[in-house]
Amino acid sequence: MNAWVGTILRVDLAAKTVVKEPLNIKDAHDYVGARGLGTKYFCDEVDPKVEPLSAGNKLIYMTGPLTGTAATSGGRFEVVAKSPLTGTIGAANSGGYFGPELKYAGYDGIIFENASESPVYLYIKDDVVELRDASALWGKSVFETTDLLKEECGSSFKISCIGVPAENGCLFSGVLNDKHRAAGRGGLGAVMGSKKLKAVAVRGTGAVTVARPEKFLDALTNARKTLKAHPVGGSGLAALGTQVLVNIINESGALPTRNWRDGAYFPEANETGGESLAEKYLVKNKGCFACSIDCARVTRVPDGPFKSSGEGPEYEAGWAYGADCGVSDLAAICKANFLCNEHGIDPITMGATIACAMELYEMGAIPESDIGFPLRFGDPHAIVKLTEAVGRFEGFGKILALGSYRLAEKYGHPELSMSVKKQEMPAYDGRAIQGMALEYATSNRGACHVRGYLTSPEILGVPIKVDPFVTEGKAGLLKLFQDLTALIDSTGICLFTTFGLGLQEIAAQYREAVGTDETDDEILLKGERVWNLEKHFNIAAGVEKDTLPPRLLREKLPGGPAAGKVAELYVMLDEYYKVRGWDSDGVPTPEKNVELGIDA
Amino acid sequence: MNAWVGTILRVDLAAKTVVKEPLNIKDAHDYVGARGLGTKYFCDEVDPKVEPLSAGNKLIYMTGPLTGTAATSGGRFEVVAKSPLTGTIGAANSGGYFGPELKYAGYDGIIFENASESPVYLYIKDDVVELRDASALWGKSVFETTDLLKEECGSSFKISCIGVPAENGCLFSGVLNDKHRAAGRGGLGAVMGSKKLKAVAVRGTGAVTVARPEKFLDALTNARKTLKAHPVGGSGLAALGTQVLVNIINESGALPTRNWRDGAYFPEANETGGESLAEKYLVKNKGCFACSIDCARVTRVPDGPFKSSGEGPEYEAGWAYGADCGVSDLAAICKANFLCNEHGIDPITMGATIACAMELYEMGAIPESDIGFPLRFGDPHAIVKLTEAVGRFEGFGKILALGSYRLAEKYGHPELSMSVKKQEMPAYDGRAIQGMALEYATSNRGACHVRGYLTSPEILGVPIKVDPFVTEGKAGLLKLFQDLTALIDSTGICLFTTFGLGLQEIAAQYREAVGTDETDDEILLKGERVWNLEKHFNIAAGVEKDTLPPRLLREKLPGGPAAGKVAELYVMLDEYYKVRGWDSDGVPTPEKNVELGIDA
Repeated sequence: MNAWVGTILRVDLAAKTVVKEPLNIKDAHDYVGARGLGTKYFCDEVDPKVEPLSAGNKLIYMTGPLTGTAATSGGRFEVVAKSPLTGTIGAANSGGYFGPELKYAGYDGIIFENASESPVYLYIKDDVVELRDASALWGKSVFETTDLLKEECGSSFKISCIGVPAENGCLFSGVLNDKHRAAGRGGLGAVMGSKKLKAVAVRGTGAVTVARPEKFLDALTNARKTLKAHPVGGSGLAALGTQVLVNIINESGALPTRNWRDGAYFPEANETGGESLAEKYLVKNKGCFACSIDCARVTRVPDGPFKSSGEGPEYEAGWAYGADCGVSDLAAICKANFLCNEHGIDPITMGATIACAMELYEMGAIPESDIGFPLRFGDPHAIVKLTEAVGRFEGFGKILALGSYRLAEKYGHPELSMSVKKQEMPAYDGRAIQGMALEYATSNRGACHVRGYLTSPEILGVPIKVDPFVTEGKAGLLKLFQDLTALIDSTGICLFTTFGLGLQEIAAQYREAVGTDETDDEILLKGERVWNLEKHFNIAAGVEKDTLPPRLLREKLPGGPAAGKVAELYVMLDEYYKVRGWDSDGVPTPEKNVELGIDA
Repeated sequence: MNAWVGTILRVDLAAKTVVKEPLNIKDAHDYVGARGLGTKYFCDEVDPKVEPLSAGNKLIYMTGPLTGTAATSGGRFEVVAKSPLTGTIGAANSGGYFGPELKYAGYDGIIFENASESPVYLYIKDDVVELRDASALWGKSVFETTDLLKEECGSSFKISCIGVPAENGCLFSGVLNDKHRAAGRGGLGAVMGSKKLKAVAVRGTGAVTVARPEKFLDALTNARKTLKAHPVGGSGLAALGTQVLVNIINESGALPTRNWRDGAYFPEANETGGESLAEKYLVKNKGCFACSIDCARVTRVPDGPFKSSGEGPEYEAGWAYGADCGVSDLAAICKANFLCNEHGIDPITMGATIACAMELYEMGAIPESDIGFPLRFGDPHAIVKLTEAVGRFEGFGKILALGSYRLAEKYGHPELSMSVKKQEMPAYDGRAIQGMALEYATSNRGACHVRGYLTSPEILGVPIKVDPFVTEGKAGLLKLFQDLTALIDSTGICLFTTFGLGLQEIAAQYREAVGTDETDDEILLKGERVWNLEKHFNIAAGVEKDTLPPRLLREKLPGGPAAGKVAELYVMLDEYYKVRGWDSDGVPTPEKNVELGIDA
């Protein structure tokens, strides 16, 4: 076997058993790995109607065939479960060093079944795999847990774990590894918490082989060269990190401001952007396994009320705490973001939920007594205090911990949750970037920017520039981006390589690593298969229709380059379903299922 | 015993038993009768969390002490159950002749418990009370059922029954009596249908006595004189029926148009108003038992595609099918309204649900294939076809039969249901009449115009004129109207008498009929007690917070006298909770409970 190592760990948390079973190689061929293969295992084994926080849900870690190889940024893995936030298939991708380490220990993935009665963690050192007591870790933060486990197991172990919010059912708690890397969205941390599984600690000393080493090296060298030569993937991201986007998106009139209430232009945006971050707080760049981009930032606020240090913020986190909360204090934004990693929560949903609470408070729908203080837009202390409250699972934090949809519904205004399928939209206004509107509406895990990132062509002009205000043709473009993303997420390569690479370079690396002669199109079809499988799961789970918050459909942008625009969703959606080969309700047709080899 | 006859029928539909039990006279004293007393019995006997269409729900018919007396318009009774539309306490009031007849047979009310396995109806002829097989009536319309039962039991019997939608769980099906009178809102017909109770047929030959006949006659004479002298209650309503409001409300810029999407002015309103109705289709006026107002209209469309005859439409029904659906063809409106009575459904929710479907269709959210034809605003044939589809419970009618909230939610836009607590708002725009906004938000049975009709002071100037755009003071005014309405609904007198009468005249009739020396204020307090009891039930049932559809809170009226206005709900709501003696979450305080003598 090449690229895949050939073994899956199946861990029954109730029976406390660990079984090693051979990888289903047919499925690995059809669904590649990581996101695709994890989802395939999940869909074959779990009832789509399962209650996400019940023992019937499963939690799957899955690497891709290129994870742990020398492929461009090939260190990714996926965590898969039914999401308690959205009720959709939940699949979240993470970088760092955990995924490669798991493969070096000899495992492509881990399937966690049922729930333990008391806290445990999974210890993996090559062949030795055992469930160990984690009572002493329960109640500890991500950082504390990581440090304690490295002390207990050895400093070379890679740790994936959850924080206190996840233990308590926070619907946007993530699964974090290497302290700062997160399988962040959709609340998969809460699934892990519901199983009383605090962590996985892994150390591997084996290797991953590829099928055709010389050709693989050629493909790799070519890809690296192409990536390095690209202005975004080669130098732009390295220079300023993802926060480089703040001014670009703001000047495009697409930076949603104050819970999307006040349009999409934030006058103080520059104070919160990548340039300011580099100037004031950047310590150094940092990269994941086998990465040449090094988009991560090690940052430090040296003094003042928000003195703190950590990593980030990424662009979306910086926006959620910044423009979305009307906050221009970058130190507060940094600190709030650090807290998210420390406690293992998704900063996009966290910031957006605070923004939603701010709007509800300002309109009078949340009484001050419920919060404990006046919660107005622009308050830098509020974003830190409330993130801490969720991190410690205290007071109003317990309500915020369910995300903006449940918050807004509780206070009578579900329409003020800026979410799709109950997951918060990130930092791009679909009124100013029409393709993003369609992306949010159709994403299989709720609103998301990494499930078909049309901001790339519509704003950045990568790989080609298209008009962000035009709706025609966006459906076809989105399908391509969604399928390609599903493929990349399944290989173990980082999506950010697409700021330079295309299908050709990705497919070439995959081909030589696993030893196949499939064409680029045949390989891309695997991405489409993954997308359709996810959609089938969601339909069977009874997930709500594809749509957008009413604000995007009816409240015109008040100013900026996109003044007067709303999201023209339904014209694009009609076309999208046709392009996908789905019926007018968005259900894949029998012909499409046959084409993709999906039993439905 | 005076005014109350002193006996309640308790019918177990599962065991097929009928028990006569003495009226709880203490409760009758505290909660008066009809709406208040029916609710009191209900709250004492039923778990607020009961599933409304399960056998655990109960269905109560209750008359008031003044029902069947010579009191002004004293022919009303109430049907009480937990509403399947709203999940709130459901209480719907009806006129006609059924209520008095029930009292003449010797019963203040009927409590239906559990569910029958096969269709039955309750036969009441004075002392003879029995459940009879209704298999032959199942599947029949309200009109057919009424005719068949009169044939079977005798033409002097009064019939209360349900139609086919109610048999099938239509969430806005009503309980109809005398063919055209309806306990219409909240889907109480579906509760009756879920119990397989098709009808109640009653004939009574007894009498109702009052405590102090001479003083009662004085009170009555005075009230009649006052009512007759009033321009609205004395002649306005008689002349043009409730449809007289169409032009008045439209000229106030408060007639919601096309699912409230296009503001609150309908240029073709006059074609659908009371003047046009009188000129084109009115056959004659008609009144209920003991009524001097005669607001009902017998109407006939003599020819054309909408040839039909029946009664109505009332103002709210005419609006729902008219301005709300953008339809100006009065013949189509009449026919659609006739169909509602024939099939036993609430025309407000029916019309508003079609309007909602029209907006969803026009924006692209409902595919044409689901409906069967293009559903555009302004189509007179559509309102008739879709009402028939619900009446026969066929095709798209099965989806519409769940009301606009479930419809809009199904198609991804719950915010486009113009409803509060899932019941559709009637024909007054709360942006142009601020008090109505507060009324809709706080009504204990979901949006409603007959739970504190502030249009009366704000637009009609009855009893005094107040500014419809002002928010200050509306909370106190609304509390008074709500409490007074709860009192009147509980006495058995018709609410429409308040277009002329006030507390003084109502209290005087009540006092002499039941023989009490309570002051006007003490009598009004009973209304407040009823209101608070309803609120307690809703809180225990877990009903959602008091609020309004986002459209009213954020979409400014585009033109007319109220241009630029939104509903200033939350400032009024704060004040309202204070005036009510409730806490800031809208929960009655312990002090208020003690004052009203409510155990909570």
